Amino acid sequence: MRIEPDIALAEALFEKLRAASVDEPGLTRDAYGPGEENAHRMVREAARALGLEVANDHAGNSYLTLAGADRGAKALIIASHLDTVPHGGNFDGAAGVLAGLAAVSGLMKAGAKPPRDVVVMATRGEESVWFPSSYIGARMALGTLPPELVDSLRRSDTGRTLAEHIRELGYDPQAVRERRAHLTPKRVGTYIEAHIEQGPVLIERGSPIAVVTGITGAFRHREGRVFGEYAHVGAAPRSHRHDALAAMAEFVAGANRAWEEMEKAGHFLLVTFGVVTTDPAMHAWSKVPGEVHWTLDVRSVSDETLAEMRERLGRLVAAIEQRHGVRFHLGPDTGPKRAPMDEGVQAALKRIAAGLGIPCHAMPSGAGHDAAAFVHAGIPSAMLFIRNRNGSHNPHEAMDIADFAAAARVIAAYAAGDA
Amino acid sequence: MRIEPDIALAEALFEKLRAASVDEPGLTRDAYGPGEENAHRMVREAARALGLEVANDHAGNSYLTLAGADRGAKALIIASHLDTVPHGGNFDGAAGVLAGLAAVSGLMKAGAKPPRDVVVMATRGEESVWFPSSYIGARMALGTLPPELVDSLRRSDTGRTLAEHIRELGYDPQAVRERRAHLTPKRVGTYIEAHIEQGPVLIERGSPIAVVTGITGAFRHREGRVFGEYAHVGAAPRSHRHDALAAMAEFVAGANRAWEEMEKAGHFLLVTFGVVTTDPAMHAWSKVPGEVHWTLDVRSVSDETLAEMRERLGRLVAAIEQRHGVRFHLGPDTGPKRAPMDEGVQAALKRIAAGLGIPCHAMPSGAGHDAAAFVHAGIPSAMLFIRNRNGSHNPHEAMDIADFAAAARVIAAYAAGDA
Repeated sequence: MRIEPDIALAEALFEKLRAASVDEPGLTRDAYGPGEENAHRMVREAARALGLEVANDHAGNSYLTLAGADRGAKALIIASHLDTVPHGGNFDGAAGVLAGLAAVSGLMKAGAKPPRDVVVMATRGEESVWFPSSYIGARMALGTLPPELVDSLRRSDTGRTLAEHIRELGYDPQAVRERRAHLTPKRVGTYIEAHIEQGPVLIERGSPIAVVTGITGAFRHREGRVFGEYAHVGAAPRSHRHDALAAMAEFVAGANRAWEEMEKAGHFLLVTFGVVTTDPAMHAWSKVPGEVHWTLDVRSVSDETLAEMRERLGRLVAAIEQRHGVRFHLGPDTGPKRAPMDEGVQAALKRIAAGLGIPCHAMPSGAGHDAAAFVHAGIPSAMLFIRNRNGSHNPHEAMDIADFAAAARVIAAYAAGDA
Repeated sequence: MRIEPDIALAEALFEKLRAASVDEPGLTRDAYGPGEENAHRMVREAARALGLEVANDHAGNSYLTLAGADRGAKALIIASHLDTVPHGGNFDGAAGVLAGLAAVSGLMKAGAKPPRDVVVMATRGEESVWFPSSYIGARMALGTLPPELVDSLRRSDTGRTLAEHIRELGYDPQAVRERRAHLTPKRVGTYIEAHIEQGPVLIERGSPIAVVTGITGAFRHREGRVFGEYAHVGAAPRSHRHDALAAMAEFVAGANRAWEEMEKAGHFLLVTFGVVTTDPAMHAWSKVPGEVHWTLDVRSVSDETLAEMRERLGRLVAAIEQRHGVRFHLGPDTGPKRAPMDEGVQAALKRIAAGLGIPCHAMPSGAGHDAAAFVHAGIPSAMLFIRNRNGSHNPHEAMDIADFAAAARVIAAYAAGDA
């Protein structure tokens, strides 16, 4: 059954959301603040106007439900977040929620009764720029956020705790402390999230959408150091130096070479040194650097790939330490574990896209998304990427509505039971 | 004629200077402050006790003169500075002044009348940590300090101008503004400076002293930048990145490889990236770096060597810009020009050392010294390095008095006319 998603509804809501959150340059919907709250209010109103059941959980996530034929069956959740980074764009997050609403409205207009409940979920606080932790809204819905975080996480601008922000909006931080799970694998059969691609792959491939194979795991060192020895720029010959920066440069260049080699061998991974600096308290143009601070993030959907890179980097570090007489300190590994998408749901989405004549790429997501929280909670999950120009987290996000419609069409068909 | 320098005098003065400037850890003689002023007072007193003529110039440099047979002949200056870095050691600077006094006292005790005036000069403000410019005392003596600097240079700790500090000690900043030259090539025939080696070369060579071939020139970029493009750590594939840090790492590693190759081909040079940092205002572990700040100092006694390295770095930068789609900005070159030591004086010092049975190495100085100001003023100059452990600019400088005596012996013989 071919369901036409309600693109007019989505376009109207995109415009309404945009107009309400202008914060030049770009727009801002602050997590657990007026920006996000307002967006939730708007999508709830739209859902009520459609006749959907509207509810929320203790953490303020919104649920907009179209009843299915079997109300006892495990639900399908179509979700994404409504917050943005400060001065971000209109599509990162909102596109996934509106794709769900467009699909549901399309089902209703077609008179199609889905086999099970279809729940459009709008999550809270996905952008970790506000509270420095990932997917807090989704994890509170699933009861998987470590309870102490509700009192220890503080919003980066207000300085107030997550609990204070939740309470201020009329929700219930105590339920978070008690690990209440509003969603469980017993009640939720499938989770689907549409999201704009934050890189340029679909533009280059010429595909409007992609099925995501998985969200990368990472090893992540945020407190890396190299310890060498400071020396006077004019008095230390090459052979006598223990130059922490020279060693660091070889580490970065060597890691990037290893990345290139592994990519050529068919691995997918991302290797990023985001912060590298000679010690700001000590460095000077006239000193051979004695200490370097660095961060490294290596991510992949494959644990084997991560293991191989870790091993290569270990050998690299050992050789550089030997050569330069320096010492590397990696510090704790704070990387998240990978979140593979469900093979069955991926296959179903691909079949639907093929049936609808929609070109559909397959690719991993190097960025984290709410879907990771659902995967880790044991719920079969999938994601669709929507083609987008200029990356995300900036005012220049540019998604064509036709590409959005392609994603919504696939989701609507899946929700109707056409797998 | 073998002259025995007065090592007992030097030892007594080293101890007096040390005791007067203790500032744990180490000791401090602040330029144009009480520490340096006190040291000048002590060496002047010692010179008066010896019966030397004692004078000073408008900038407070001290001149301790032993009259020569021909008072109209161009003088020999034996000099160094008396300031130290904060928490430095007792030998960097003072050793050169006390070697001069020990030599002169030795000449007097031997009843040797030198052919021309021998002037032990104690300079001011050599350590640029105090006023951020090189050899200010020596350059004021020579009338070569750009006059505006006397009012624009401010001492790093007091915040007061060089002129204020000079006036406070009773000297004459106006003469600096008028470029008065107390020393000129017409009055000074030769300049000799003894200084502890600030690196480990003489320790390794097993030589107590070295004749310095020249003070390196440099090209120095203190405001280098690499401009790439910021991107989300998880969304930008390798092929799409314009990673400023990856480019910088290849620049550092490539420059160090070029250095190694040139050294193997017989060049002497020093290559130092002292400050390298992803932009502190923007960097984060979660961002592909879009901008890197860096400094580079490349020094050599050979202009050809500097030119070759500059050319190699130019090719390296062009290749990296191409490969990464980034742009390097080198900024102004603020490096000093090289200061080659006089061949004739070098040869004379080597002959004397050989005659005295003192092993004497020959090596360039990668660090700047007052001698550079004399070379640039057109005065034939030479330097002797004295073996020293643990580098300089720290409390752990360690010079054996026997090595100091070797230098003083060579200087005394030179002053006596034994070349």
